[in-house]
Amino acid sequence: MDFQSLIDGLLKGDARSAARLMTLVENDIELAEKVINSIYDKTGNAYVLGITGAPGSGKSTFIAALTKKLIALRKKIGIICIDPSSPLTGGALLGDRIRMKESFSVKNVFIRSMANRGQLGGLSRATEDVIKILDAYGCDIIIIETVGVGQSEVDIFHSAATVLVLLVPGLGDDIQTIKAGIMEITDIFVVNKMDLPGADRKVAEIQQMLELNLKYRYENHDNQKSSEKGNHWIPEILKVNSLTGENFDELMKAIERHRNFLNQSGLISKYLENRIKSETRQIVKYKLIKKIEELLEKDDKIDAYMREVKNKSLDPYSMANKIIKLLENPKS
Amino acid sequence: MDFQSLIDGLLKGDARSAARLMTLVENDIELAEKVINSIYDKTGNAYVLGITGAPGSGKSTFIAALTKKLIALRKKIGIICIDPSSPLTGGALLGDRIRMKESFSVKNVFIRSMANRGQLGGLSRATEDVIKILDAYGCDIIIIETVGVGQSEVDIFHSAATVLVLLVPGLGDDIQTIKAGIMEITDIFVVNKMDLPGADRKVAEIQQMLELNLKYRYENHDNQKSSEKGNHWIPEILKVNSLTGENFDELMKAIERHRNFLNQSGLISKYLENRIKSETRQIVKYKLIKKIEELLEKDDKIDAYMREVKNKSLDPYSMANKIIKLLENPKS
Repeated sequence: MDFQSLIDGLLKGDARSAARLMTLVENDIELAEKVINSIYDKTGNAYVLGITGAPGSGKSTFIAALTKKLIALRKKIGIICIDPSSPLTGGALLGDRIRMKESFSVKNVFIRSMANRGQLGGLSRATEDVIKILDAYGCDIIIIETVGVGQSEVDIFHSAATVLVLLVPGLGDDIQTIKAGIMEITDIFVVNKMDLPGADRKVAEIQQMLELNLKYRYENHDNQKSSEKGNHWIPEILKVNSLTGENFDELMKAIERHRNFLNQSGLISKYLENRIKSETRQIVKYKLIKKIEELLEKDDKIDAYMREVKNKSLDPYSMANKIIKLLENPKS
Repeated sequence: MDFQSLIDGLLKGDARSAARLMTLVENDIELAEKVINSIYDKTGNAYVLGITGAPGSGKSTFIAALTKKLIALRKKIGIICIDPSSPLTGGALLGDRIRMKESFSVKNVFIRSMANRGQLGGLSRATEDVIKILDAYGCDIIIIETVGVGQSEVDIFHSAATVLVLLVPGLGDDIQTIKAGIMEITDIFVVNKMDLPGADRKVAEIQQMLELNLKYRYENHDNQKSSEKGNHWIPEILKVNSLTGENFDELMKAIERHRNFLNQSGLISKYLENRIKSETRQIVKYKLIKKIEELLEKDDKIDAYMREVKNKSLDPYSMANKIIKLLENPKS
């Protein structure tokens, strides 16, 4: 099937076209550019939720329960799994745990596993492109699931308008294991498995940590999201049971409250700007690093510089400056 | 003390000048550039050894024993510790375990701890600059100690002419915990704590893994170091006891054999080229990323692009291309 047919298929809601375009953007940044060029003006309708939590916090069961709620509201849902240990790829929604190869769709739900994929050109770059494909595919809500470790996972959360962090009673140090950067951008804390002993204690722990954190932010004026006076979102804390669905109505309302807050405060615009900046930064970095590598491998001048550095008539910083000039002005 | 006095002090072998220059290159890439500009033509005499091993493999005791041998040969030695858990910073050589703040010197030995330092501009960039300072300071041998995890640590090993990997009997999976990339560049395997049961089995395990690896390399023609026909270094395997010094004479001979091999085969030139390429690449990347961040924060055009991306008249890839053009031609 040719490229334009895939784009046409995607815009008509064809799942196979969507899946094939995702593979293209994951594997090849030049094709990614072509895909995004073609679909960008059809994006912007989907609302992006980021969900993270340590292994064992029940992310996949939680997402399955959340998805059921959204399906009942006649929403079309896209799910992107970054967590390589996630059993979510298809299995959890169907009641079994078979791991799907890469993508899977049932009526109104499309699941894409990006674990161990798209690393080459940057996982967050590829994830942002897959979000846009799901958006153009017609999804109303896109859920990104990550395990919340590593810088690229924090970058991924720039894509999410509302960030949910899952914790469970008992698991004493799960708050600590979540990377600090993700804590800072959490909008809703969810204590999953609320039937287990210690759920209320976990809520109190989060409350305490939150107060410390807010005090710190206040003293250091470093909270980007609340930089405009009066625009403060105080993260909510909720207990749920993903197996029984208990408190999911309340959870849906909390998500809606945060979404309304972003719209009414105008911070949705700040979110979009940060998201655009973050993805543009990823693309620029990737393209420049590719150029550097090509230059180091192929340009004749590099060998000459290398000889000079070897015989000490040039030092590595000066060579680096010459390479930057070559990048800026290839014909000089 | 002014900059030129520090440089003069360094070149006369003043340890305090060396330590202060190291702090400068770790904290500020512009000062690093100035330092390397000033000393580069005085470098190139030191031979760089890289030493890695999992925690518990006895790296600091091993390095202390190796250093004693080198002191006896009237060598001047520089040691750079990257391993944040290393107790080597001064203590091990003096018989106690007091952790030094950042650097420490006794007659003919200078130790610098870079754990948790110089991360900002790239740990491997800063390490390479500290190597040059130790080289200009007059060191004959520079030892880099790392724990061998993470990409930046693998990058650091581009600086080393001879790479030693420490393993210990018993610790069954220590071979697996060492990052594959480091295994590929190992020149000498050292089974430390040879008095423990299982030392010979460990040697056999390494031998076996090495044969598999060499077979794989041979079939895939991907061994850079042996890319010229006939230039094959077969990694050596040695047992030592760092507490008693047993087999350290043999170890010194093995290091000398590898050094002679590099010189006689001409591969020393390839090593230097790879090292220069690696450090130049780090510098170029860091400088470009800094430029991108400045541009994203300050340039007026960015806001205009951002508005276009928000209203869908421009997509993020096209914005990235415009930013790359701005970087290449700031006045356009």
